[in-house]
Amino acid sequence: MPTDFSRTRDLFDLPEGVLYLDGNSLGPLPRSAAARVQRTITEEWGQMLITGWNKAGWMDLPTRIGDRIARLLGAEPGHVVLGDTLSIKVYQALASALEMTPGKRVILSDTGNFPSDLYMAEGLCRTLGESYTLKTVAPEEVADALDDTVAVLMLTEVDYRTGRRHDMPALTAKAHAVGALAVWDLAHSAGATDVKVAEGGADFAVGCTYKYLNSGPGGPAFIYVAPRHAEVARPALSGWLGHEAPFAFNLDYRPGRGIERMRVGTPPVLQLAALDAALDAWDGVEIADLRARSLELTDAFIAGVEASCPTLTLATPREHRWRGSQVSFRHPEGYAIMQALIARGVIGDFRAPDIIRFGFTPLFIGLDEVTAAVAILAEVMATDAWDRPEFKTRAKVT
Amino acid sequence: MPTDFSRTRDLFDLPEGVLYLDGNSLGPLPRSAAARVQRTITEEWGQMLITGWNKAGWMDLPTRIGDRIARLLGAEPGHVVLGDTLSIKVYQALASALEMTPGKRVILSDTGNFPSDLYMAEGLCRTLGESYTLKTVAPEEVADALDDTVAVLMLTEVDYRTGRRHDMPALTAKAHAVGALAVWDLAHSAGATDVKVAEGGADFAVGCTYKYLNSGPGGPAFIYVAPRHAEVARPALSGWLGHEAPFAFNLDYRPGRGIERMRVGTPPVLQLAALDAALDAWDGVEIADLRARSLELTDAFIAGVEASCPTLTLATPREHRWRGSQVSFRHPEGYAIMQALIARGVIGDFRAPDIIRFGFTPLFIGLDEVTAAVAILAEVMATDAWDRPEFKTRAKVT
Repeated sequence: MPTDFSRTRDLFDLPEGVLYLDGNSLGPLPRSAAARVQRTITEEWGQMLITGWNKAGWMDLPTRIGDRIARLLGAEPGHVVLGDTLSIKVYQALASALEMTPGKRVILSDTGNFPSDLYMAEGLCRTLGESYTLKTVAPEEVADALDDTVAVLMLTEVDYRTGRRHDMPALTAKAHAVGALAVWDLAHSAGATDVKVAEGGADFAVGCTYKYLNSGPGGPAFIYVAPRHAEVARPALSGWLGHEAPFAFNLDYRPGRGIERMRVGTPPVLQLAALDAALDAWDGVEIADLRARSLELTDAFIAGVEASCPTLTLATPREHRWRGSQVSFRHPEGYAIMQALIARGVIGDFRAPDIIRFGFTPLFIGLDEVTAAVAILAEVMATDAWDRPEFKTRAKVT
Repeated sequence: MPTDFSRTRDLFDLPEGVLYLDGNSLGPLPRSAAARVQRTITEEWGQMLITGWNKAGWMDLPTRIGDRIARLLGAEPGHVVLGDTLSIKVYQALASALEMTPGKRVILSDTGNFPSDLYMAEGLCRTLGESYTLKTVAPEEVADALDDTVAVLMLTEVDYRTGRRHDMPALTAKAHAVGALAVWDLAHSAGATDVKVAEGGADFAVGCTYKYLNSGPGGPAFIYVAPRHAEVARPALSGWLGHEAPFAFNLDYRPGRGIERMRVGTPPVLQLAALDAALDAWDGVEIADLRARSLELTDAFIAGVEASCPTLTLATPREHRWRGSQVSFRHPEGYAIMQALIARGVIGDFRAPDIIRFGFTPLFIGLDEVTAAVAILAEVMATDAWDRPEFKTRAKVT
């Protein structure tokens, strides 16, 4: 049975008059999340107090939710765990991968990677010592830059600026061929595309949950370790909840079984509760249907905007195989254009220097919203509605 | 005006029939936290969506709340920030401190430190290379073990097992005298004792908020960097929100100003909202009054138990200067004794191999609760009420 996206759409309560094309930045509130967090606070924390760790199952949330997310990533169950932030998970994956490729010292990434991933890699290299280096090339040059000096290939599958999607299976295969491991950041693919970490051969994968997975501001990150590495990878961030026996309080660290070792500290129960509720939306959603709908939406948006806004330059690949679930256009006045759109209820976002981004979350966006958004963008461009001082003043955070 | 602890007590809604002496493990729910988180979810996340980062001030929560906590630590305002878990903050502090003590390779800690701190140090040493080592001695031997090979002294101020409190000013001074830096973990002191990081000379301090600060399960951690190091310390976990200009999306990392550089990834807004509400309880609480009341409570509990339970051996120092805000007793059947107490509504906890712990949070515990808890413990011990099979079966998590 094909996925019923009218059902998933009804699970979200978007504000009146808003066309929300920024689910790739922060997913909207699933109706059920508020009640679920409230229950966790009053009935669990309030009534069970410390016993909630057992009675309410708090301690198992990171792996239980990990299994729910595994399906969306095409990952083997039992090999995904939640916790920390994406940056921390990047560090964990990289540190483990580097230790598994002894004698090599280069982390290869691209200039389209999210800067925090690059910063974390830079920090890790400096901690490891001077001979470790981070090398970045243009997204299109990654395959050619993979040589036998590379220890780890670290990429974000879908570029946060352009929405360009890397070929995970091909690049991973090439990485393996030169003796490197591949760490994939799925921040902009999980819940938006047909991610296939197992089939694609990923060694490690990480991602956040507050974008297309709708877990709310600051929701926890996830990490996947391929089964073949699960008992080998060493967690550089070796916290007690990744210990084989956390409550034995031994003085020496012994890594826990498989993915459990990638846990670090006490899990953020309130954020996990929101995420758990948000994941209910995925019951009955087939990932192949999600991908098909995403492409239908982005195709329609590209066609509509190109037909009506000649001064906007498409930054997103036209070919389906290279496209994630967002559409970006370039314009020197991108910032002001986005402000004018937001003032009209079309919420996307701006990424310096000149990109306006629109994310399409198939769970709650349909062709009606695409048509409406195109019409408003066309009106803004046709009337130069963006050309007003109040739209050009930059806020601290965009 | 002396602090009114009957006011603070009314801010918590403890379950009927429960004497909660486990606020040192997980603080109870402050009445206002549920409503505050609900508002953050429905009015901020639900209505403001992505704009909540600015409009609702989410992005500033980590430093704004840091200032509220600074007062409780005796820290200078502007030098505390929230985020991540305590284990991650330990890693950050240690990595920074080690880089500031070049040529030295030893982290000195004690066997009473919380194991996760030791595990994180062990992991960091392994990442840094083989010549870095973690050395642990008994808590009473720390001062003598401080020699000029030590790069960093890492201690938890109050021992999670015994409640023994280190002399922070004296040990820090001795560390400085041998050219070491001092990293203090305040997990069991913040909100329970008169912590004085500035006066005590701490170089770095870290702690969690879900114990005596009542932020709820998985609440974020905090880190303090002494002002003299604030612009020097390098964050090994160099995430984008610690960058000088996170939203410029530069490819190279440049540390942010002062404590901001210790931020890593996207802050956990729901947990921070709960914490912010929980901190309202501290308005009008003088830390000197808190300390006096804590000692009054622990004195009374020790006296009561010793008078009525001859087979329990006090593990907590009698002298005020060496005592935190918890009282621990040893007994070979400690696990079963604690289960029998919990069955009677007295909630403390057990730490292997033989310690029963009772935490006293002055905000919501008074002498009446102490008297009642002593009476129940005395009854359990006098009647061997713990000697039943159901109290001896160990649960996975305690």
